[in-house]
Amino acid sequence: MKPTTIAIDLNSDLGEGFGIWRMGADVELLDAASSANIACGFHAGDASIMRHVCEMAVQRGVSIGAHVAYQDLVGFGRRRMEVDPQTLANDVIYQIGALDAFARLAGDRVRYVKPHGALYNTVVTDAEQARAVVAAVRSYDPNLAILGLPGSRLLQLAGDAGLRTVAEAFVDRAYESDGTLTPRGRPGAVSQDASSVVARAVRLAFDHEVETIDGGILSLHAESLCIHGDTPNAAELARRVRFTLEEAGCAIVPFARATAVPVA
Amino acid sequence: MKPTTIAIDLNSDLGEGFGIWRMGADVELLDAASSANIACGFHAGDASIMRHVCEMAVQRGVSIGAHVAYQDLVGFGRRRMEVDPQTLANDVIYQIGALDAFARLAGDRVRYVKPHGALYNTVVTDAEQARAVVAAVRSYDPNLAILGLPGSRLLQLAGDAGLRTVAEAFVDRAYESDGTLTPRGRPGAVSQDASSVVARAVRLAFDHEVETIDGGILSLHAESLCIHGDTPNAAELARRVRFTLEEAGCAIVPFARATAVPVA
Amino acid sequence: MKPTTIAIDLNSDLGEGFGIWRMGADVELLDAASSANIACGFHAGDASIMRHVCEMAVQRGVSIGAHVAYQDLVGFGRRRMEVDPQTLANDVIYQIGALDAFARLAGDRVRYVKPHGALYNTVVTDAEQARAVVAAVRSYDPNLAILGLPGSRLLQLAGDAGLRTVAEAFVDRAYESDGTLTPRGRPGAVSQDASSVVARAVRLAFDHEVETIDGGILSLHAESLCIHGDTPNAAELARRVRFTLEEAGCAIVPFARATAVPVA
Amino acid sequence: MKPTTIAIDLNSDLGEGFGIWRMGADVELLDAASSANIACGFHAGDASIMRHVCEMAVQRGVSIGAHVAYQDLVGFGRRRMEVDPQTLANDVIYQIGALDAFARLAGDRVRYVKPHGALYNTVVTDAEQARAVVAAVRSYDPNLAILGLPGSRLLQLAGDAGLRTVAEAFVDRAYESDGTLTPRGRPGAVSQDASSVVARAVRLAFDHEVETIDGGILSLHAESLCIHGDTPNAAELARRVRFTLEEAGCAIVPFARATAVPVA
Repeated sequence: MKPTTIAIDLNSDLGEGFGIWRMGADVELLDAASSANIACGFHAGDASIMRHVCEMAVQRGVSIGAHVAYQDLVGFGRRRMEVDPQTLANDVIYQIGALDAFARLAGDRVRYVKPHGALYNTVVTDAEQARAVVAAVRSYDPNLAILGLPGSRLLQLAGDAGLRTVAEAFVDRAYESDGTLTPRGRPGAVSQDASSVVARAVRLAFDHEVETIDGGILSLHAESLCIHGDTPNAAELARRVRFTLEEAGCAIVPFARATAVPVA
Repeated sequence: MKPTTIAIDLNSDLGEGFGIWRMGADVELLDAASSANIACGFHAGDASIMRHVCEMAVQRGVSIGAHVAYQDLVGFGRRRMEVDPQTLANDVIYQIGALDAFARLAGDRVRYVKPHGALYNTVVTDAEQARAVVAAVRSYDPNLAILGLPGSRLLQLAGDAGLRTVAEAFVDRAYESDGTLTPRGRPGAVSQDASSVVARAVRLAFDHEVETIDGGILSLHAESLCIHGDTPNAAELARRVRFTLEEAGCAIVPFARATAVPVA
Repeated sequence: MKPTTIAIDLNSDLGEGFGIWRMGADVELLDAASSANIACGFHAGDASIMRHVCEMAVQRGVSIGAHVAYQDLVGFGRRRMEVDPQTLANDVIYQIGALDAFARLAGDRVRYVKPHGALYNTVVTDAEQARAVVAAVRSYDPNLAILGLPGSRLLQLAGDAGLRTVAEAFVDRAYESDGTLTPRGRPGAVSQDASSVVARAVRLAFDHEVETIDGGILSLHAESLCIHGDTPNAAELARRVRFTLEEAGCAIVPFARATAVPVA
Repeated sequence: MKPTTIAIDLNSDLGEGFGIWRMGADVELLDAASSANIACGFHAGDASIMRHVCEMAVQRGVSIGAHVAYQDLVGFGRRRMEVDPQTLANDVIYQIGALDAFARLAGDRVRYVKPHGALYNTVVTDAEQARAVVAAVRSYDPNLAILGLPGSRLLQLAGDAGLRTVAEAFVDRAYESDGTLTPRGRPGAVSQDASSVVARAVRLAFDHEVETIDGGILSLHAESLCIHGDTPNAAELARRVRFTLEEAGCAIVPFARATAVPVA
């Protein structure tokens, strides 16, 4: 293993079951990730799942984030909703508060907020909903970070409001030359090939760049890499991304606490 | 007005609308009560209602309590459910956490917990569910008080666990000679007559006793009187109870902060 | 009373409570209306409310329609959602089937479908969602009518699919010169003045025209007039609209059964 | 293969996903079963799942039953609820109506009703809730059968009301000598051993008896055998039960249509 020279965060969506239903490999992802985006009951997650995932996260030193969403359980928060900004802000606060109860019970607290699904996509461009999310986070705790897409309206407004913003990159998604994600339907939009995913993670971490769908090079400074958990080989992929990054000399460190990064 | 010699708390159920639907006279009850039992989204209440009621409560110096319930919106939390204790405890924590977010935003915090509806009735005798509620409250914040029926399993176990317990009495309900409430169906079980309600409030506050359904006298030390909000004349009744108590020399003071009661 | 020379339908939204919560004056509106748009549990309404309203409707000879909506209870179906067409179609079928059970129990059956709230507005222009609603209705029962806005994509596609379409007009809403409704926020968009509402109803029924917001005249052939139930004086207004129309010689007859209109 | 001399029904719980979540091996179970107990949205199932499972069932000649439940999604209908009988009856009607829409769309109709989870257990002894289920089924369609536990209050009251009753036996559960099921917690209560499950199925089908937990023999005439789908090897087990029964000369035929059983 090379000496650790740099550090990056790995974030993953967790606790996305509901009641009797389960989704994703929570334990394996917690072993690989450094930040856990935990569902808060609006698109997935219930009180018991939230508590359990918080406990497992704290045990592993994984940072807890509120994965806030539209109130749409049957649609898993993946359907854009025209929620008025004040209602959206209150819904975000409710979700953070509920999760924070379990985070504190487990010995930590909510460290950041990441919008989920359709809300994530909407606040890339929609200033009104982005502003609502920022206002909610800020009113709950101005020390919370916001995790989102680099260049999004959300991160821009969060920065303007004095919140810490954390840009993320996707190790399994193709990028357009303008920095947006290639829509999921298109050929090559999502990669499940382990080698290419791992290679992209290393390049993002060390060189801050990613190859675009048309073969160009995109400069992309991400403090966190998102590793998805909903593909069949997600757990294995996450493990390999972490292992390869560490082998290459990149420490996996939660961004939300990365005040003192170990440098060789 | 006589000089204030004693003090009591008046608690009332608030924020029991959902979405577009409203219930009860929240503003009028907040003007009369000193403690607000606020619904947390499981039997009633949504994020926006919770925020609004918290803000109004803090403006009036009314203490905020989490009115925790079974997860049963269509049944308004009034149907007994056989929830396993661990799930129940987690559901209670979730509700307190969500409400606490809005209480803190409004400048205060959740001060106590009161079970609602079928859960209220169940924990009078059911040790398992009572223990779950106590464990939840204690794990969230051991400084929280629990408001409930005197002699209930809930208050007994809460006391054993070192929590502050607050016994309440009902100004509009008839009592059996053993201290239990006369079931709602029976003749004379519920009184909407203003004079008798007010008289009972005064007697409970000053003499710590209440007339039973069969004409006897029951000794009943209650730190808080519950005034219901779901009768047609609830707002007027609440106002008269408060006014008459104050006129008689009894201050209306939130129990959850009653560290320094003004004494004449 | 003039001899009855013409007939029109009056439709109203009904059964919009949920659980313990109530909304609108169901009984009074059923006494005035000839068609009941009954909520089916997705934006409002539960099984017990649906059954009760169906029974009351059948007793009064009021025709039963399924008021289908997005699955959004806390938002009362008023928030546009990007639901994929197949899911939307299935949701519409589910709602019709559930209501039909109660309609048949009461001795009739569902006679028509009217989209509610945000879905109503969306299918005015959105061909994809409109097509989904049409497909759902047609697959459930091709004899069902669709009630909607004249000129809407919904009615156009429903007509193309061979379904009976019924155009409605609003007696309390202002119209633009192009036939669209003046948005609710604008001055003069909604009228609660009884005289002007009643006058508009008569003019729509007899002359098939309505004055526009800018003082012009709009030709508008509506088989049904929508009377809202969510204003404070809704019940009184509905009664006066019906009374005045009947006095003027216009019979109030359900469109869904209007095979033999009584003509003087 | 022996000549077919007898016939029995195999029923299985299906469509128990919700939104994005899936549960059980629907396709494999539909290939083995002759009757499908389909969730109707109250404990599991949504409109799109219901439609899909109905279509697959009809394609395979599998009979459609409404698997009705308490309204408790997060608890999967497994928590006893004290629902008042009229509300319960209306909830059952709502569920049957919604499923019937999809059954008819697929070319068949709902043929029977089976209570799910906690409701199933409650109506074994609770006459009030059992009566509510019977009243609901009868009012929807008196030709519907009710599938349940032999000796239960439900089947007794359904028979009294003139409904067809169908007794089921469990091939993977141990029985007490009084005919009740050994509670799940006890050692030996549930068997996942393929050989013993298959042997029990054959004995139930041909000899109408089952070995009890204490080694005795219990006479048990069941028209239908329930094969569970929530164990890891459920699909394989179901296949083997069907195959072995058929090899032994027992045809697998839906009870709800078994008017003309093929006999050798």
